[in-house]
Amino acid sequence: MAGHAHRTPILTSSSLDEGVGGRVYLKCENLQRIGAFKFRGAYVTISGLGDEDRGRGVVTHSSGNHGQAVALAARLLGVAAHVVMPEGAAEVKVEAVRGYGAHLTRCAPTHTAREEAAAAVLRETGGTLIHPFDDGRIIAGQSTAAREMHEDAPEPLDLLLGPVGGGGLMSGACLATRHLGRTTAVVGVEPEGADDAARSFRSGSRQPVGVVDTIADGLRTPLSELTFGILRANLEDLITVDDEAIIRAMRWVWQRMKLVIEPSSAVPVAALLDGKIDVRGKAVGILISGGNVDLDRLPW
Amino acid sequence: MAGHAHRTPILTSSSLDEGVGGRVYLKCENLQRIGAFKFRGAYVTISGLGDEDRGRGVVTHSSGNHGQAVALAARLLGVAAHVVMPEGAAEVKVEAVRGYGAHLTRCAPTHTAREEAAAAVLRETGGTLIHPFDDGRIIAGQSTAAREMHEDAPEPLDLLLGPVGGGGLMSGACLATRHLGRTTAVVGVEPEGADDAARSFRSGSRQPVGVVDTIADGLRTPLSELTFGILRANLEDLITVDDEAIIRAMRWVWQRMKLVIEPSSAVPVAALLDGKIDVRGKAVGILISGGNVDLDRLPW
Repeated sequence: MAGHAHRTPILTSSSLDEGVGGRVYLKCENLQRIGAFKFRGAYVTISGLGDEDRGRGVVTHSSGNHGQAVALAARLLGVAAHVVMPEGAAEVKVEAVRGYGAHLTRCAPTHTAREEAAAAVLRETGGTLIHPFDDGRIIAGQSTAAREMHEDAPEPLDLLLGPVGGGGLMSGACLATRHLGRTTAVVGVEPEGADDAARSFRSGSRQPVGVVDTIADGLRTPLSELTFGILRANLEDLITVDDEAIIRAMRWVWQRMKLVIEPSSAVPVAALLDGKIDVRGKAVGILISGGNVDLDRLPW
Repeated sequence: MAGHAHRTPILTSSSLDEGVGGRVYLKCENLQRIGAFKFRGAYVTISGLGDEDRGRGVVTHSSGNHGQAVALAARLLGVAAHVVMPEGAAEVKVEAVRGYGAHLTRCAPTHTAREEAAAAVLRETGGTLIHPFDDGRIIAGQSTAAREMHEDAPEPLDLLLGPVGGGGLMSGACLATRHLGRTTAVVGVEPEGADDAARSFRSGSRQPVGVVDTIADGLRTPLSELTFGILRANLEDLITVDDEAIIRAMRWVWQRMKLVIEPSSAVPVAALLDGKIDVRGKAVGILISGGNVDLDRLPW
């Protein structure tokens, strides 16, 4: 992946450190290609396909960052990409996917319609489905973000925090931390309004999604059996934050650190700023997942 | 200065490179302490004062980044700071200066009132005036941004672009480029609505300011004799861009590069995106000067 994905910088803020009493390192995947860590998994997965599969192309359905990731990774690898996007998806994301040269299929904005449309494209093309997180190759790709964070941070991390949606990023973080033999405690953070992972983690079995209501649009997806299993076995804890704290944290990072981050990225920052986790005296890594937001519709 | 200022990262964008046909490197001083390169000059200047001068404190007047820079640098060095700020200055900047522990003096929002208020504080305290740009020590401090850019860029730069207001940043860029023996052409960029430097550069003598009307609030200041002399002798060219191009470029960098930059920083980016300078096949460095903006008053 070297030379294709950015090795994103780790940034710090004295005022954040002072505010929480720890040493906080932000791994800035908002500065990754397509503006999110999702590029890593898509690139690793598509580059691992054999010639025959590459020839038939790749298929995915996404209203968010994964669609852009598949479109760009496929283009770089000379593979045709088919992306199913629901009506109502942000125009800037539709344009981005189209700009990367992907074939676009629009569908009704329901989960069923998306799956049906993707299934139709798969039948038609014989292509390979690139799932956003329920796939060991995708998780391996996402794990490189945490691996770089461990390698590049100026000191060993006591804690590693990141957002949990489908669980791909944090599953990768768990595996990278183990693989490197680190003792870092890995903690997931979820919006209160989409807390299936936290409830599942506490109860020990995968819980239904319930009503999803959060500004963190990248984290509305439930865990899969695969990611639940990895997170359950490896996470130290899984905590939640409310939307007000998410918006405050998002604005704080824009204002003080000059980074455009999306609400999902603000979720672990909110856990710190809101005192949901005590990091005094600790070295803390935060995975900033992405920065794709509509600049005409900011939440403040 | 090492260990006090951040060695800010250099970031790139494939779509920017594709768009302009060159290889563009952004030196991100928006990620510097206080959110702007100004911290460099203030820190170098105040740290160079003798014990007696330090004991009497430092004084400046500023409605912008320089006031914050002096306040933070002074605090880090254990020196008292007095900052004169006009009524009407952005509340977030007033709060920042106060938060760094500086003594605040408010005055009427005119240049004369600012100078008089600063003179009064100087008489009262016997302190040292820290000018935002008309001072060799300040220029030496600002020059470290360009020096790091030359040192850290992955290839020698054919061109180095940055914004021109009072001229401190670009004077420093000229001196650093010469000092390192580089053949890089250094080009200043100015808003059309505050183009005294461009007119002065063309005519060969310092021109009056005229009516200043630009969104780039950091660049409304005229050159001094000192900075004009350095720029005249060392700049390859000095070009202008209009406010619409500045706003477009600012939004482009937020949207595509996920960086919060202020209008002044967007000025050299606008020169590229608007085709004011041909960079095809060239390695181009851009000094991104800062990222202090009011998030409740965006220009789009």
